[in-house]
Amino acid sequence: MSEGPIQHLYPDAVAHCYGCGHLNEDGHHFETVWDEETDEGVTRFTPQPHHMAIPGYVYGGLIASLLDCHGIGTAAAAVRRARGSDHELRYVTASLTVDFLKPTPLGPELEARGTVVEMKERKVVVDVRMLADGVECARGRVIAVRMPEGMARSG
Amino acid sequence: MSEGPIQHLYPDAVAHCYGCGHLNEDGHHFETVWDEETDEGVTRFTPQPHHMAIPGYVYGGLIASLLDCHGIGTAAAAVRRARGSDHELRYVTASLTVDFLKPTPLGPELEARGTVVEMKERKVVVDVRMLADGVECARGRVIAVRMPEGMARSG
Repeated sequence: MSEGPIQHLYPDAVAHCYGCGHLNEDGHHFETVWDEETDEGVTRFTPQPHHMAIPGYVYGGLIASLLDCHGIGTAAAAVRRARGSDHELRYVTASLTVDFLKPTPLGPELEARGTVVEMKERKVVVDVRMLADGVECARGRVIAVRMPEGMARSG
Repeated sequence: MSEGPIQHLYPDAVAHCYGCGHLNEDGHHFETVWDEETDEGVTRFTPQPHHMAIPGYVYGGLIASLLDCHGIGTAAAAVRRARGSDHELRYVTASLTVDFLKPTPLGPELEARGTVVEMKERKVVVDVRMLADGVECARGRVIAVRMPEGMARSG
């Protein structure tokens, strides 16, 4: 693995995301690291017992959240690797698609793996697979775009 | 409006969804009611301050969660209206798509409005618009399928 979670490199002004911001005290704290061997972003997360759809299975909205932040994190990490550390790191989601392939068991750690399938100046497309106990339970696509200038408040 | 939130009619064994289950003490408690005038399902929800993407804007994963549960609730309510109260009410998400049209301001109540665009025996497709202060900030599609038999634990 690499230098640590990409989310820890986000500027403080944009590090409060409920899903992945390390400054959001109430959030999930998803963390995306780079797997050098497979050239993928990887996020691991163990849901809480109340994150259920029905007893025994993970809530789909949490899976959508995981894929969303993981796609954004993978996009940022890939751009940083391709263009250097000074490139703007913060992307936002233009579009999210999630296909729920099978019910996701509640209990095991989930693993999201993201592959960059397109990288343009202001747009990155990431395909994501999500596994539980090694079984692919969901997959999706995140279209990430550079955060619009002026969206982030200073300070 | 109608007889109340469709989620309150779900059997107790499948009423623990983190997004919309009235028996999940830690969840969002999304509630979907039917608007007789427009023939749409409607869910209203005010995010908490920590549900942010960056300061001032709503977290996309929460929007995805809202659209997901709202699509499922709209599907269930529409089927109940079309086929009677004894029809199985509980659907799960096969696929979710969310297009984030513009940043969603954090503060105002959000309104999701769902329209059934296809209804088959085991599959319902719902298109959803999400508004904040009357402005459409996101839209999406939920493909809902009947919950597989045996997925819900008894009791």
